[in-house]
This record gives sequence, structure tokens and C-alpha cells, in this order.
Amino acid sequence: MTTTTPAPKTLDPAHFGGGERHWHPFTPYSDEVELKIFTADLARNETVVLLRAKAGAQLGVHDHFGRVLAYSISGRWSYAEHDWVAAPGDFVYEVANSQHTLVADPAEDIVLFIYVEGPIHFLDGDGNVVGVETAKTFAERYLGFCREHGYPEPDLFPF
Amino acid sequence: MTTTTPAPKTLDPAHFGGGERHWHPFTPYSDEVELKIFTADLARNETVVLLRAKAGAQLGVHDHFGRVLAYSISGRWSYAEHDWVAAPGDFVYEVANSQHTLVADPAEDIVLFIYVEGPIHFLDGDGNVVGVETAKTFAERYLGFCREHGYPEPDLFPF
Amino acid sequence: MTTTTPAPKTLDPAHFGGGERHWHPFTPYSDEVELKIFTADLARNETVVLLRAKAGAQLGVHDHFGRVLAYSISGRWSYAEHDWVAAPGDFVYEVANSQHTLVADPAEDIVLFIYVEGPIHFLDGDGNVVGVETAKTFAERYLGFCREHGYPEPDLFPF
Amino acid sequence: MTTTTPAPKTLDPAHFGGGERHWHPFTPYSDEVELKIFTADLARNETVVLLRAKAGAQLGVHDHFGRVLAYSISGRWSYAEHDWVAAPGDFVYEVANSQHTLVADPAEDIVLFIYVEGPIHFLDGDGNVVGVETAKTFAERYLGFCREHGYPEPDLFPF
Repeated sequence: MTTTTPAPKTLDPAHFGGGERHWHPFTPYSDEVELKIFTADLARNETVVLLRAKAGAQLGVHDHFGRVLAYSISGRWSYAEHDWVAAPGDFVYEVANSQHTLVADPAEDIVLFIYVEGPIHFLDGDGNVVGVETAKTFAERYLGFCREHGYPEPDLFPF
Repeated sequence: MTTTTPAPKTLDPAHFGGGERHWHPFTPYSDEVELKIFTADLARNETVVLLRAKAGAQLGVHDHFGRVLAYSISGRWSYAEHDWVAAPGDFVYEVANSQHTLVADPAEDIVLFIYVEGPIHFLDGDGNVVGVETAKTFAERYLGFCREHGYPEPDLFPF
Repeated sequence: MTTTTPAPKTLDPAHFGGGERHWHPFTPYSDEVELKIFTADLARNETVVLLRAKAGAQLGVHDHFGRVLAYSISGRWSYAEHDWVAAPGDFVYEVANSQHTLVADPAEDIVLFIYVEGPIHFLDGDGNVVGVETAKTFAERYLGFCREHGYPEPDLFPF
Repeated sequence: MTTTTPAPKTLDPAHFGGGERHWHPFTPYSDEVELKIFTADLARNETVVLLRAKAGAQLGVHDHFGRVLAYSISGRWSYAEHDWVAAPGDFVYEVANSQHTLVADPAEDIVLFIYVEGPIHFLDGDGNVVGVETAKTFAERYLGFCREHGYPEPDLFPF
């Protein structure tokens, strides 16, 4: 098999130090929820991001139009619409056609590692769409934050 | 817009407690590398998994045929083929057509959260393929471990 | 390698006869554009569909939030926003963050085979969103059409 | 909603004329099966391709490690391992962990439009892997064919 296998050595993995990225507020949805964007794929609408929320914070109800894979690094959190509570070390697999409201436990700040596919619609109390989040809006929010603070613009689009 | 938007409330997210899954050795590649499988998608060949390696452990050279998104939870690690060292809080984005050897730093055990797409070919020192890992082999290894230890078989296929 | 390779023989391919599906109008956007849905994936928001439009028909401006892969089977068509004309045998690769208006050439009806990822927002002349199409709305439109006409409901969700 | 929606107008669709690509033999598997590659994604291991096989041709048994979506444009074909026959206008959805042998009906040449995810392992009569096809090998075969015949090299990697 050695001779017919392609030699898949062309592409290098991309390494992103957590310290190379800045926490920035998830405006306009909350001042208590912050993001750290690792990568965004504009053609596919995919984003890799850390989310940090203050103890007791909420992130308004939102509709998913793709998958979200979330790993709990610290703190406890839940969705107002469901019974379980996610603790550090837990994994939550969300899919399109789901809708929920994130609630951080009051005891401790939370940090999640999240892989997002597709857009997310944020809703007001009457079910009206007040914002559509995509890989592009995630990237633009962070790049705007970097410009505002005089930070060098990171490369969010490695592939 | 409210009237024409579909009400995407049909599907619930799936929550997996870290304590609901068992660490099991990544046989036959290493006794010092353990896995904890959250979910596997047999139709798409995708796996969500925690990997834990003992300080100083190595995981033999392997070829990627899809993407691997890895978040560093604890410990420091590197690829023998590259210069960077991943620390807790770092993110590594690997793609198809890459090949590397995982090396855990001798100072501390490592834990990674990993989303795997596609198969991985493990190679011996001469470049021969000695194992092909897929969502199916990941799932079967863990289900076999559960049977062997009398644990109830977890549902690895939520969607 | 034979002994270590998993035997990936578990899952069968799903075959869908074109005659097993019905053309139905792409309401409320156009009476001159029809769809034939092969499969929909509600968890991923993906749809596989044939689109047929009458010679000279238009499909209103829409925003993409994911990829669309379109193969031209018959007829010529274009996007009002771009210079090229797609002929039978051509392939068009669309990505998230694109917006366009489909125009069928007046000489002949068109038929396209399309793989859709993510939602599509249809806009009115002022840029307001008048409809959000997803795998769920594609499936529900067709299942409603089948019920209305007394056709047996097809299985749109094979995997 | 207009003010908060991002204006997703950045990326243009890519149009590929069927006449811009060349049929080339699917070496070394068959002289009677030809390919026409539209695009390849090396990071994701995805390929968009037309396949043409002579009436009565076979394409040896192969294992899938990802999805294959195939639309029948002309001719009738089947898999030796399954009972159905695909006719023009039919759609076949294949997934990882499937294995089969393509057989073109003796009456007519076949043409398929195919979206391929992940690698494909071709096997000999004893189940040994004799070739691993990826987006990279698909691209390299075609680029080599172009060089050999003095054709300009096409851009297979639009995104």
C-alpha cells in the first residue's frame, strides 16, 4: 500500500495561542458575555470560539440554523428550556431547528469552547429577529474591537 | 418576518456528562493515551472525543484525511514535525493532507477536546499503514471496553 | 493491513428514483419555479433537491448562509448580479455571504441538481427578509403538497 | 431587522463551464471510466466531479470513509451488492462505512455528477487496499493529465 498511498504532507496544522486572542464583549446582546474568536470560515459559515459569561448572566433566546458543539471548561450552565445542567467536562451537541436561552449558574463564571456551524438568529421577547450572527459578524466584531484598541489584526482565516 | 420564519423548536440539544463516559486506552497504539468518546456519526465519519496522555507519552505518526479541531484543556504538547508548543487554552486546527506525531510534554499529563472528521491512518516506522481509525472504530473500541467491564453501553449516536 | 482495517460494510446507500418524488411549486416565491426534494437533514440543515424553472422565470434575490453546489442539467441560466451564463453540463459553487437573483434564459426551461447547506433568506425589493428557507421548510412544503394531493408521504430523512 | 443583518455580499459564486474541464481516465482503476474534476478542497478532502463510464464497465470494489452524493445524468447503473438500478434523474446517497462495486448497464454509457467527501479505498479481490483516493489524488491525476497534454492547468481550488 505504501506506493499507492498519497503522501499527505502538504498542509500544516495551524496553532493559535489563547494569549494571541482578546476577550471582547458579545455586543449588542450582553456586556456580561465575552468571546474569543480563534477562526472563522466565511465560505462555510463556521466559527471556532471561546465564550465566557459572568456568573448569573443570560444570553437571550436564539434559533440555531446549524450545529453547535460546546465543551464546558469551567462553571455550570443550562438552557432555560431544558432540565440538565452542564458542568465542567461535559459536552453539549446542538443541532439546527433548536431554540434556547443560555443561563450561567450564579456561583461561578463559565467558559465554553464552541464550534459553530451556520447562522444564529437572536430574538426579542416577541419572537422578532433582532440579530443574525454568522462567521462574518463574529469576525467583524472582533476585528473592529482590535482596531478600536489599537491591537494588530489577527488572521482569522487560516484555511 | 415572524410569520414566515419557521419555528425551529423541534430538536433538543443532547447533553453528555463527562462522568457518563469512561476513559479507556487507545489500543493498540498506546497504553499511555486514553480516550473518552462523547459521540460518533457513522454516516459522516465524525467523532467527538477527549484525549488524555501521560506526561512524556507519544502517539505514533498518523495521516489525516479530514479535519481535526483540538482544544487544549491541560498540559503542554507538540507535534514532532512542527515548532510550536500548545498550552492550556490554545487551539489547533488540523486539515486533511497533514501528517504528524503527538508528543506530550514531560512535565504534566495532557487533556484535549477533539472534533475529528474523516479517518486517520496510523503508520509504522517504514510508513506502512498499521491501523485506520474511523468513527466506527472509535465507537467499537469504547463499546467493547464497556462490555468487557460490565458497564452499560452508552448511546454514542444521538443524531 | 487487511487485519487492522475495519470492515465498513454496515450502512447501505439510499437510492431515490426521480419518479418517486413529485414536482411542486416553490411557494410563495414563484409559481414558475418548482422543486423535487430528494432528502433533507434537519439536524445539519442540508437539502438535496432538483429545481425546475420555466423559460424566463426569475427567483427573487436571496442571501446565502451556507454553501450551495448546483449542477446544470438543462437550459441556460444566470444570476442578475454576475456576468456568466450557466449552460447544461456547467457547475456553480456558491458560498455563504453571497447574494443573487436567479434568471432562467427565455429560450428554454431549466433543471438544476442542487445540494444546499444552511438557510437561505429571501428578500423583498427593500432588502427586508420575507422568508427563511431551511431543510425543515423544504421538507414541510413538500410533505404538505403530498398530503394535499393524497400522495403517500415520502421518507426524506434516510440518515 | 434590516439594520442588524450583515450584508452578505462579499463572496462571489464560482462558475465552471463543463467545456473548461477535460475527461481523463480514472487510472489505474479503469480505462473505461473517466473523470472530469470541477473542484477539490484539500483541507476538507472534498471533490466535485463528473464520472463517465462505458456501457458495461465496472469500477472495482471500494470502501467509503465519508459521504458521496451522486446524481444520475444519463445511462443506467447499479452496485453489484444491491438490488436497485439507478436511472437518469435518480439520486443515490452513500455514506461512510459502505462498500460496493459500480456496474454500468450494458445498454448505454453512464454519466454521474458526484460530490465526494473523505477518502475512498480501492480493494483488490483479496480485500487488500490497492489505492487511496482523496481530493489531492483526484486533483493531481487531472493536473498531471493537463501537463501531459499541454493543456493549461485549471484552478481546482476556488475557496
